[in-house]
Amino acid sequence: MNETTVGFLGLGNIGGGVVRLLREMGGELEKRESVKYSIKKILVRDIYKKRSIDVPKNILTTNAEDIIGDPEITLVVEALGGDMPAAEYIKQALMAGKSVVTANKLALATHWRELLATADEYGSKLYFEAGVCGAIPIIRTVTDSLQANRIDRLYGIINGTTNYILSQMSGKGVSYADALYEAQQMGIAEPDPTADVEGGDAACKLAILSTLAFHSLVPLDDIYSRGITTITPLDIEYGKELGYTLKLLATSKREGGIVCSRVHPTFVPQTHPLASVSGSYNAVYLFGHACGEMMLFGRGAGDYPTASAVVSDMIAAARGEAAPQYRMTSESTITPNWESRYFIRLKALDKPGVLGTIAGILGKHKVSIASMRQNPTGETHAPLLFVTHLARELDVRAALAEIGEDIATIENVIYVEDV
Amino acid sequence: MNETTVGFLGLGNIGGGVVRLLREMGGELEKRESVKYSIKKILVRDIYKKRSIDVPKNILTTNAEDIIGDPEITLVVEALGGDMPAAEYIKQALMAGKSVVTANKLALATHWRELLATADEYGSKLYFEAGVCGAIPIIRTVTDSLQANRIDRLYGIINGTTNYILSQMSGKGVSYADALYEAQQMGIAEPDPTADVEGGDAACKLAILSTLAFHSLVPLDDIYSRGITTITPLDIEYGKELGYTLKLLATSKREGGIVCSRVHPTFVPQTHPLASVSGSYNAVYLFGHACGEMMLFGRGAGDYPTASAVVSDMIAAARGEAAPQYRMTSESTITPNWESRYFIRLKALDKPGVLGTIAGILGKHKVSIASMRQNPTGETHAPLLFVTHLARELDVRAALAEIGEDIATIENVIYVEDV
Repeated sequence: MNETTVGFLGLGNIGGGVVRLLREMGGELEKRESVKYSIKKILVRDIYKKRSIDVPKNILTTNAEDIIGDPEITLVVEALGGDMPAAEYIKQALMAGKSVVTANKLALATHWRELLATADEYGSKLYFEAGVCGAIPIIRTVTDSLQANRIDRLYGIINGTTNYILSQMSGKGVSYADALYEAQQMGIAEPDPTADVEGGDAACKLAILSTLAFHSLVPLDDIYSRGITTITPLDIEYGKELGYTLKLLATSKREGGIVCSRVHPTFVPQTHPLASVSGSYNAVYLFGHACGEMMLFGRGAGDYPTASAVVSDMIAAARGEAAPQYRMTSESTITPNWESRYFIRLKALDKPGVLGTIAGILGKHKVSIASMRQNPTGETHAPLLFVTHLARELDVRAALAEIGEDIATIENVIYVEDV
Repeated sequence: MNETTVGFLGLGNIGGGVVRLLREMGGELEKRESVKYSIKKILVRDIYKKRSIDVPKNILTTNAEDIIGDPEITLVVEALGGDMPAAEYIKQALMAGKSVVTANKLALATHWRELLATADEYGSKLYFEAGVCGAIPIIRTVTDSLQANRIDRLYGIINGTTNYILSQMSGKGVSYADALYEAQQMGIAEPDPTADVEGGDAACKLAILSTLAFHSLVPLDDIYSRGITTITPLDIEYGKELGYTLKLLATSKREGGIVCSRVHPTFVPQTHPLASVSGSYNAVYLFGHACGEMMLFGRGAGDYPTASAVVSDMIAAARGEAAPQYRMTSESTITPNWESRYFIRLKALDKPGVLGTIAGILGKHKVSIASMRQNPTGETHAPLLFVTHLARELDVRAALAEIGEDIATIENVIYVEDV
């Protein structure tokens, strides 16, 4: 029997879920996996707070040092969330030679390089399967199953909150605000939804995932990220008519030696498996030169799905199995000038020659038009919709900047990915 | 650098694919994974046969003993396929203390118990990610990621040939024979398609997968298996009208202490992710009590997808990582008397009272009817379609056995799974 003494940092939704799952499945894990965990200390903010989980008061502490400084504790489960002090605690635990299991994508995405260097220096290990897409074993798949692949493209629906909101908007035709409100009522969106709806959460996960998949450090700051707050039911409706479903898609592609990583609302073909990922589910679709297309689908959040991944890492840690590392083999660079197709919705002044002017400006910037739709309304500003052929991001931005308000108002620009 | 001397058993489609992939990615794997493989010997049937891959003649041998008896070779890649002599070679290699990587589901499903006992006794290791669903890391997911789960249901589209044939029948309305012929022309079906179309190949994979997922030995012989050879475009058409897509589904469910494992044509709801798995793709959909729903989708066959999985196992072997084992924790039994809904298509004698007689016989056997459709054709035998509520397999069989030819001819019986 492999016995491990564990310290927990945090006993909220995730920490509590892990404790409950260990209690429930501990006997099974002993019999089946020959691992046994005893929880010695749990860091909390308030020892006397009422909790949904019953834990002896004497194992709770408000002092992280009771865990990090205890040599008996060889495994630390970090479930505080947020950047600091979580990242600092992880670092200190690694410096103390402990294994660390975390679900904290933000601490990881922002301090990864430093944390891995620390782990290397002190011979300790950092596991983070739960940090990306909850229960879905995407980290293990990329690091333990796809090593012989050159992964060229990776697409993720990796934020359940926004996928739920977009699914509701798409299915019921409700506004962004109404869908967000409903998601908040259901506990799917936070009271402050910024990190989810603005794309920051997805960008953290994409930074981690792309770095591992492309073997090239993709810094969080280099990921272009745009959220779903400006999406209207009209955009979704127009997209549907063209055969597309709208997703907040995290995209990473290799183009030559360059990796393009970005998070933004994207139209994907209705027939693609990614289009069928609805509600709060997550999925990662990737293309490796040997494995071909692959998609992993499942629960990206929630106490038990996250705990499922955390416990798998705790078993790996107890056995001293290798922890995921990024091993850079190419000096790739990130580019803000990726190639994409664009869905451009405008309101144009309803006067002769405007259409030609807009087409001319796009053309001048090498943005070629694949299809155009005009909804004549008799209003002063007529809705106008362009879908472009493949074009370069900076070209599109330059073209749009040149379209002045005396010609048209740009209502929305959405990416179109033929996956 | 972790250097491993390897012997190959077989240099066909899969063996050749692995050799090619190692050549192509060897440099990358050295840099990134610190593993290096040198192929010392390859067992072939005919040294002088023309091959699509260029291999020095002096490393080819027709004598397995040159590999199994060579102490320098510490890793054997078995890519012969078939039951014997592959299973015997695997056993001998394990007895010689070597690690073995295989893609051979048949040898594994039929000799697993013996092979694992041998590995245990001789301290050697057997890896088989490529044996189930090619590139899809389903073995690793079940053994390394879902340990804290009680998996209660598992559904697989785990035979690409039949999925291709059914997709063609469904999309184009062609007959089974025509779709099979086309698949053979395209190299998707073998000249002798029996193992695929009769469900045997899927049953092997299901035996392995269910044993690992349910922690309870599921012997191949206990898996009920029926193929797709009797499926007609009419069945598919009727199913579509009811909102279902037809798949050759491998199903394992836990009902109390009993595991039901079976492979047969099954209608799944058109809206379920499994319904969107078309062509020669594979997918496994499972439900764990902690992780919730999860689906893995990808290429289940082909030289490079299979090689992708084989190489991941070769890396695990080189590092001495744990090989998947089944650790039985429950004394489950297999039952042939599972519960399902049924789609029953008959041709009934077009005379008064027949419908009542059939309904009476079903009712007597506790098979309750959910919906009924009659297509009056004016012919002597009228097409009749029943869909039942949940019923027991043995009850349905008894009922159908009682419906004599003076009442109706049973044209087809297909399972309906509301997943």
